[in-house]
Amino acid sequence: MQRLDGNTPMNDHSTPENFADRLAAAVRSRGTPLIVGLDPRPDQLPAPLQCASGPARPEELAESYRRFCCGVVDAVAPLVPAVKPQAAFFEQLGPHGMVALAAVIRYARRNSLLVIFDGKRNDIGSTAAAYAEGILGGDADDGWCADALTVSPYLGGDSLEPFVRTCERRAAGIFVLVKTSNPGGGMFQDLVAEGRPVYRHVAEYVAREAAQLRGKCGYSPVGAVVGATYPDQLAELRLALPHSWLLVPGFGSQGGSARDVAHAFDPKGLGALINSSRAVIFAYQRDEYRQRYQPTDWQRAVEDAANDAIEELRAEGPVLR
Amino acid sequence: MQRLDGNTPMNDHSTPENFADRLAAAVRSRGTPLIVGLDPRPDQLPAPLQCASGPARPEELAESYRRFCCGVVDAVAPLVPAVKPQAAFFEQLGPHGMVALAAVIRYARRNSLLVIFDGKRNDIGSTAAAYAEGILGGDADDGWCADALTVSPYLGGDSLEPFVRTCERRAAGIFVLVKTSNPGGGMFQDLVAEGRPVYRHVAEYVAREAAQLRGKCGYSPVGAVVGATYPDQLAELRLALPHSWLLVPGFGSQGGSARDVAHAFDPKGLGALINSSRAVIFAYQRDEYRQRYQPTDWQRAVEDAANDAIEELRAEGPVLR
Repeated sequence: MQRLDGNTPMNDHSTPENFADRLAAAVRSRGTPLIVGLDPRPDQLPAPLQCASGPARPEELAESYRRFCCGVVDAVAPLVPAVKPQAAFFEQLGPHGMVALAAVIRYARRNSLLVIFDGKRNDIGSTAAAYAEGILGGDADDGWCADALTVSPYLGGDSLEPFVRTCERRAAGIFVLVKTSNPGGGMFQDLVAEGRPVYRHVAEYVAREAAQLRGKCGYSPVGAVVGATYPDQLAELRLALPHSWLLVPGFGSQGGSARDVAHAFDPKGLGALINSSRAVIFAYQRDEYRQRYQPTDWQRAVEDAANDAIEELRAEGPVLR
Repeated sequence: MQRLDGNTPMNDHSTPENFADRLAAAVRSRGTPLIVGLDPRPDQLPAPLQCASGPARPEELAESYRRFCCGVVDAVAPLVPAVKPQAAFFEQLGPHGMVALAAVIRYARRNSLLVIFDGKRNDIGSTAAAYAEGILGGDADDGWCADALTVSPYLGGDSLEPFVRTCERRAAGIFVLVKTSNPGGGMFQDLVAEGRPVYRHVAEYVAREAAQLRGKCGYSPVGAVVGATYPDQLAELRLALPHSWLLVPGFGSQGGSARDVAHAFDPKGLGALINSSRAVIFAYQRDEYRQRYQPTDWQRAVEDAANDAIEELRAEGPVLR
């Protein structure tokens, strides 16, 4: 595998670099595991990006989403290793939203950010392969070309397999839902079968696959989603998934603290990505930033909020080595 | 709720008809539970729809998918109650594919077919609501406007709740993955917790929600996906889900027989939709139809294959009353 150096774009898909290694390089170069979730919502867009009066047409709103998310990318690209666009908010706008999503992904990649397509996709066999081939890598001009994708495990190992194979071939990554951050996530995930919860069974599958594809950094492109809102399980799964990057949602707005997410890291400060969405991208609405910035300066609020979250994580987390 | 009559388009979203009742009316009017899966694949398109030589650009391929799927709709609209476009194959082509998918959905609805968006979507809280609001109903010109959606349950009850509420408000439907048709589906679904498999826990959730929203036909818009390849579980889940339509994939190409799926129906011949994708839409490639039709006559092969599948189901299934 080719080594990353300063002249190689981090997410150039022609580079057969293991996704886990690209991620480690990006986290080290930015000095933080914080990633920013791109979750545009019509009623929270800053005034300059609000559509004209009256209900917005999906096409107009999609264009506002594109401009807003590209504006967030401008603000955070020097600060964080990756962004995580939430497909649902774009898909909500119909095909216009999906066109905007592709544009946002392209823009983020051109700005040297890794892109995690948060789609929680999956299906069986050749259909799973279609998702994997379509979303991960591919033609940057016409396709999605994301670096990684979130994937749902309910359909079992043979549904996850095509994603793992695509990760290998395209130097891409996946994050399999293991223990999600929502209050009701335990309804099925926490059911105890054969002496351990369902999420541990999923974690065992992920651990097996991850062990096969370790990069130079020791981690694999087969990662897991584990919510910040369950710190005990975060610590447990850090141990159970020694070769998997953990994608940790629920930090900030959902109530997970920097202390909670500290469990997600290895002693070198690697192995976890901590996502913050609303608290960063809609910072201009939060009291502490609203006093400093006008809505027209919303990007400076994004930058400040990202820097503040990075500091907060740094104060509680292990030192990145 | 307004009654369906001959003058009311079956899938007019302005009609506040329970989705389960619309489905029952459509199944009765066509006299069959067969639905056709729209799973376009580049290498299986009939010759007249193949792109010019060389690798097709996503935009060209998306246009071929649109023409192919609209051609299937033309062939099957008089025969079956619904079509089930598989989102993965369209999404594989990037945003161009999603534009084609929306066009196919619009075309199918205009031709009085109910449309089940097979996306296996889900996420937490307000993000799940974005999928639900975006995909189910909405603006027919700009949005997805599907009648129903397949949904993944791993994230738990609070992730499914927004879909259920949207079903209620928009007279739409969902089919929650319970027992899927793939060989590895049991890896997590069959784990036994508290004396019963995980898929039964999911079914219990579905049954509770379904009981709240029963339409005049006795069924609810909260349905379940149960694979034809597990006939024993199909019979078990028919009993466990007395108010849910079962969406049954795996008939035909995946090996489920008409006898296998007979377990999915109630004594009136209602309560289940049997999906066939490849065996119908790519019938022109099957020996029995290839002898009769040229590739240019692929739509006649689709029509014949749909009629043959309907007959096959009728021979083994209960009489629709």
